[in-house]
This record gives sequence, structure tokens and C-alpha cells, in this order.
Amino acid sequence: MFPRYPVPMDSDSPPQDLVADVFARDCTSRAAFEDVTSKWASLVLLALGEGAIRFNALRRRVEGVSEKMLAQTLQTLERDGMVLREVVTAIPPRVEYELTPLGVRVSGQLQGLAELLEASVPQVQTARQAYADR
Amino acid sequence: MFPRYPVPMDSDSPPQDLVADVFARDCTSRAAFEDVTSKWASLVLLALGEGAIRFNALRRRVEGVSEKMLAQTLQTLERDGMVLREVVTAIPPRVEYELTPLGVRVSGQLQGLAELLEASVPQVQTARQAYADR
Repeated sequence: MFPRYPVPMDSDSPPQDLVADVFARDCTSRAAFEDVTSKWASLVLLALGEGAIRFNALRRRVEGVSEKMLAQTLQTLERDGMVLREVVTAIPPRVEYELTPLGVRVSGQLQGLAELLEASVPQVQTARQAYADR
Repeated sequence: MFPRYPVPMDSDSPPQDLVADVFARDCTSRAAFEDVTSKWASLVLLALGEGAIRFNALRRRVEGVSEKMLAQTLQTLERDGMVLREVVTAIPPRVEYELTPLGVRVSGQLQGLAELLEASVPQVQTARQAYADR
């Protein structure tokens, strides 16, 4: 059994003995892990790691994302406390999205993953060829 | 424009000037990035980071995954050169799954992400509460 978050409301004991576990189906860390690795979220977090950006610019950066999916993804990440939606006072006013401190850390982790995969393209292509040939 | 992998078959120039880019829709690194961050793949890679494991044990470890989705996920990761399917000579013979060297590196990156999110559960819960309250 894996200990679970959140702590049950009727629990008398302090939560120190509970450990978050992404493998546990009911753990908040599992949900957050799924949120940040979902279809578009990881690319959105990577893109936001480059700085605050407007919706349409973000949509161009994350090639292939639909308006609906981008809006939905930003909402999920905002809800998890990783993205801030900010109204910039200007004429005309504009809306920008940026990372929270937690979002910066998550984006940094994903950056490491992205760089590893970008550097591993030849290996992945070789593996795919071998798989197709067998 | 982002340069693309793979190199076009009719290209005369060597690929040194091409840079892989996970944001580019046609780049192999984008496909690999999506493969390893897909719904179950990231948890499977994390679990395999703990060592070689049989299908049913893996299925128990990754709570909630169906037999079909686990089989499909393992196949995708095998094709990308991150997972090895190994028949262990024993009586009766058994099949185990383990990471390739590339898979170990990818799993390590995901481990960093998982640990960050496990450590960030209180922050995520606070953010969700604030989002629900507004």
C-alpha cells in the first residue's frame, strides 16, 4: 500500500508520516504529474520557460495546438499553480501568461527531458528502423 | 522556421546544420517527447527505473493502467529504443521488461520531475483551493 494525499479530514494524526507518490492513483502528485505531462501541457510549460507570452504567440510557438486545447491546458496549469494569467495595463490592455516559481521549476525539469530527446534523435531513429525491420 | 528531422531523402547536404526541436511538429524529438510524456509512458518509465520487471508486476506498480494500454505503451517505448523486452531462460521461461541506456536517462529526467511534484503537493493543493474559491 502507498500512503495517500490528501490527509483524510477525520485523521487525528499529523501528516508527517504520509509520503506523496506519483504511482498512487489518488495522490495529488499523481494528478499534477499527469497534468504537466498531458498532451500539450509539457510543450506549453517549455514555451513559457522562455518568458511571458501572449495567447496567440504561444499558440504559434506550440505548433499544432488548437485554440481550445491551449485554453484548456492553460486553465489546468493555472489551477495547479504553475501558470499565471496576467492582464497587462497598456493601450489596448493585453493578457499574458507566465510561469509561477513552481512552474519555473517544473519547466526546468521538462527542459532537461526535451534536451535529452533532442540530442537522442539519431538513437531513436536507429531504434525505430531496427524495430520496423525485424 | 525550425529545421526539421529527419533529413529529407533527397537532401545533398549533411545533417550537421539541422537542430532537433521538440516544438517542431515534424521533428523526431517532438514525437519521442510525446511518446515518453503520454498518459502512461512516463509512469512506466519511472517504474522501470526501479529495475527489470514482469508485465503483471509492472501493471500492479502503475496503478490504474489496463492490460491493453500497458502493452501498447511498452511497444511504443520499445520501438523508440527505450525499453527492452527480454525472455529470461528459466522454468517456466518468463518475459521481463527493462530500460535501455537511453531509457535509463529518460527515466532519470522523469524521476526529477516526479520528485519535484511529490514535494510540491502542498503548493498544488493550496493553488487548487484558491482557484476553486475565486
